[in-house]
Amino acid sequence: MSELHWKTAITEVKPNKICLRGYPVDKLLGKISFAQAIYLILKGELPSPEVGKLIDAIFVSSVDHGASPPSVLAARTAASTGAELNSAIAAGVIAISRFHGGAIEEGMKLFRRIDQRIQEASGKEEEVIREVLKEMKEKKQRASGFGHRIHTQDPRTRRLFDLAEELGLAGKFVRIARGVKKALEEQLGKSLPINVDGAIAALLCELEIPPEIGNAFFIIARVPGLVAHIHEERTRMRPMRKIHPQDYEYDGPQEREI
Amino acid sequence: MSELHWKTAITEVKPNKICLRGYPVDKLLGKISFAQAIYLILKGELPSPEVGKLIDAIFVSSVDHGASPPSVLAARTAASTGAELNSAIAAGVIAISRFHGGAIEEGMKLFRRIDQRIQEASGKEEEVIREVLKEMKEKKQRASGFGHRIHTQDPRTRRLFDLAEELGLAGKFVRIARGVKKALEEQLGKSLPINVDGAIAALLCELEIPPEIGNAFFIIARVPGLVAHIHEERTRMRPMRKIHPQDYEYDGPQEREI
Amino acid sequence: MSELHWKTAITEVKPNKICLRGYPVDKLLGKISFAQAIYLILKGELPSPEVGKLIDAIFVSSVDHGASPPSVLAARTAASTGAELNSAIAAGVIAISRFHGGAIEEGMKLFRRIDQRIQEASGKEEEVIREVLKEMKEKKQRASGFGHRIHTQDPRTRRLFDLAEELGLAGKFVRIARGVKKALEEQLGKSLPINVDGAIAALLCELEIPPEIGNAFFIIARVPGLVAHIHEERTRMRPMRKIHPQDYEYDGPQEREI
Amino acid sequence: MSELHWKTAITEVKPNKICLRGYPVDKLLGKISFAQAIYLILKGELPSPEVGKLIDAIFVSSVDHGASPPSVLAARTAASTGAELNSAIAAGVIAISRFHGGAIEEGMKLFRRIDQRIQEASGKEEEVIREVLKEMKEKKQRASGFGHRIHTQDPRTRRLFDLAEELGLAGKFVRIARGVKKALEEQLGKSLPINVDGAIAALLCELEIPPEIGNAFFIIARVPGLVAHIHEERTRMRPMRKIHPQDYEYDGPQEREI
Repeated sequence: MSELHWKTAITEVKPNKICLRGYPVDKLLGKISFAQAIYLILKGELPSPEVGKLIDAIFVSSVDHGASPPSVLAARTAASTGAELNSAIAAGVIAISRFHGGAIEEGMKLFRRIDQRIQEASGKEEEVIREVLKEMKEKKQRASGFGHRIHTQDPRTRRLFDLAEELGLAGKFVRIARGVKKALEEQLGKSLPINVDGAIAALLCELEIPPEIGNAFFIIARVPGLVAHIHEERTRMRPMRKIHPQDYEYDGPQEREI
Repeated sequence: MSELHWKTAITEVKPNKICLRGYPVDKLLGKISFAQAIYLILKGELPSPEVGKLIDAIFVSSVDHGASPPSVLAARTAASTGAELNSAIAAGVIAISRFHGGAIEEGMKLFRRIDQRIQEASGKEEEVIREVLKEMKEKKQRASGFGHRIHTQDPRTRRLFDLAEELGLAGKFVRIARGVKKALEEQLGKSLPINVDGAIAALLCELEIPPEIGNAFFIIARVPGLVAHIHEERTRMRPMRKIHPQDYEYDGPQEREI
Repeated sequence: MSELHWKTAITEVKPNKICLRGYPVDKLLGKISFAQAIYLILKGELPSPEVGKLIDAIFVSSVDHGASPPSVLAARTAASTGAELNSAIAAGVIAISRFHGGAIEEGMKLFRRIDQRIQEASGKEEEVIREVLKEMKEKKQRASGFGHRIHTQDPRTRRLFDLAEELGLAGKFVRIARGVKKALEEQLGKSLPINVDGAIAALLCELEIPPEIGNAFFIIARVPGLVAHIHEERTRMRPMRKIHPQDYEYDGPQEREI
Repeated sequence: MSELHWKTAITEVKPNKICLRGYPVDKLLGKISFAQAIYLILKGELPSPEVGKLIDAIFVSSVDHGASPPSVLAARTAASTGAELNSAIAAGVIAISRFHGGAIEEGMKLFRRIDQRIQEASGKEEEVIREVLKEMKEKKQRASGFGHRIHTQDPRTRRLFDLAEELGLAGKFVRIARGVKKALEEQLGKSLPINVDGAIAALLCELEIPPEIGNAFFIIARVPGLVAHIHEERTRMRPMRKIHPQDYEYDGPQEREI
């Protein structure tokens, strides 16, 4: 055993056997959804059916948001120069950084800090939230997960929170997120929606996901969207075109019911 | 309207409304799985329940394969130097290239070429397969999707094919994949398993996915695995360690039942 | 000695000693230029002073070409989302692919193929070139390294070729490049300039650089330009801006003499 | 003029004319070295001959450091899977992060903070340095740019500093770097060498380069080394090999004189 010997607790691979966190992968096929497998590999345990359903919804909510996010523009730009599919995806993922997709980790940290303080203050929730936001304002910090360039009410947030309620998974962190929204409204004199990042942040706090991998949920969700854009770029556009970041129109299927 | 005006058919974003291929995203939440949403965004239509189930299984099959694949080593190496989560993922995705994960596209092209030739030859399946493999051998080309460094029988393949049968989705391409396996055995004098790439290639052919995005199914599936490894690297290892590509052991949960 | 033991012939590192291709690096400092060190590390030998000078000029020629190349747009897009400096560079480098910067390798292969054929045909240069271009046209292949979106005469090409003449390094490949330009003019009925990629391709052929690393000369040259753009993006622009690929103006120093 | 109109001060491109920071590129070819062009594009002005010489030396010093740095391992790992040259470079660059190559920016910030404090304290240099290091120790911060895994005396540092002296460019920041080394020795009871990152940090401070692009000097210097390793990986090794991070030997040219 060399001095470089190391250990990993994720997946065990032996001839003709692959166990993900202890579960033989072939036994999982057909039994759990991809989203549940993601939860398993990241968290180490299988989710309950309710948690599995919420995780599926979290990923569905962020699978794509049109052609203007910088990750899409970076991926399309790379694809347009002839980059391989995987490399164009990588260019897109590099652009999912602090100001784009990065709000989940920050939002989680904020909600957890508030929760911590509420526990210490024995439950004066509203007061604590107002205090924390006041401190943040003084340090010129913005609350992550609130406000949206396009949406005044993020349609994904409402549905994600409703679903969490239905599944019995909306607890103190959903309440905190709503409290922050209300307190921000008082502070700023205008209403900022809880955006999808803020909603996911609250729900991942409910599920006890570590904040350090919060953004991964956005990245995992968005990679398929990047693939769709790269494929469209390659099959529909000419190489080396100048990609306008805004002046495009949608010409896909009209709105339809599921 | 500028000369740079362009069109996209993937997602329509309007204030407070986001439609994926025509479907309002909030209507999809709680109704479809993440895997089904991926199918929708890539293919343009919702899958049938059976196809949805198979797609989920395809992604679950490839979510992780331990610490030795080069994509994991590249991602861990980047993470070990302090790279951001998204950048470490990007480094991993760059390493999912021709010789690692690239077999799906190649396998799909092979199976489709064989199918084309069978149609032209009015159905002499076995003969056509033998012929194609002979031609490939002459050009020193290897059949993608067969053989595995570790597994003599890939446990994922058997279960994926069984599931496809149960769901009524195993058709001519599964038959062709099995035919190629048999013909290779004759040609090489030894049995090579259909590996998971080969199995996925056959199934994506059944689902009429374009081969050009075949590898994306592997990349999408594997990103969560990369995240798990990056997170373990950051939380369990010291920075800048020398990462041995082989000399590691698994110390996670023992094998367990679902 | 493990079964994984391997060998490398690039750099030897021992305590307090670093030898690049055999030369102690501290002995090189102050004696050779960066460009000469690049030549050494890639080619294995120190260049003559003339070759060193030409290599320096090749890199200078491609250090930047304004804000519209896709590599710059990808790097700026990533930087605008808050990506780290190194990651934003990586996004830019991913976009230096087949259609952007990729012409050097292709150009080198073309010039070497022509040279090979001239040798076989014992010297009928013009004829061979015409023939090769005719064959390429039939296969709908374009000659790499000719034509430019903006320049009708690439100012870099003329000066690079003049410098190569002065240094006694312009040989058969410069002649072949000029021959291809002339033959293309006959074939297409219009004059295409030898662009900087074509010029570099010819000169790297003269220097017996392997075509497989031809594009590296462009990438190495352009990384500093990417850094300049990333730094300007971070210090002069607001985050998450929409980056128009064309509608910008230059407001730096007016034209000046060295 | 659209609302997206923007400005850049780096390079002006007009038909048949390219000006880098105001200088026509063709006038620069043959006149300045690549390193000088890098200085121009990053700093906005041409360096004096002395500064040009020092910049060349800085880049030469970091062109390669053997096969064990993580950037090399990440690039080789990607190349081994069949990744394109540019993508393999990108994977390597992603791994030049906080703990590898990141010391230059940190070192520069430290030296500038010390300089600031010395000015405020009207010149009690030694005292200030001791104080700053004490404060850092209390906050458990390490001084960037000191110590090396392999070298007890970094051969590059001594030569870079000597060269800076010869060129009249070694000023207060070289003095501060040496002062920190001395004070660290007192504090830790052992001697840590100023490593090449620390040396470059001091010299870039002398040249008034912004710390935010300090690491870029390492990245720019190292990309050619990455190319050499990627090319060796592709031409000398079989694809998909397991790359041991340590168990390799050098088999290139023996030590030789320039």
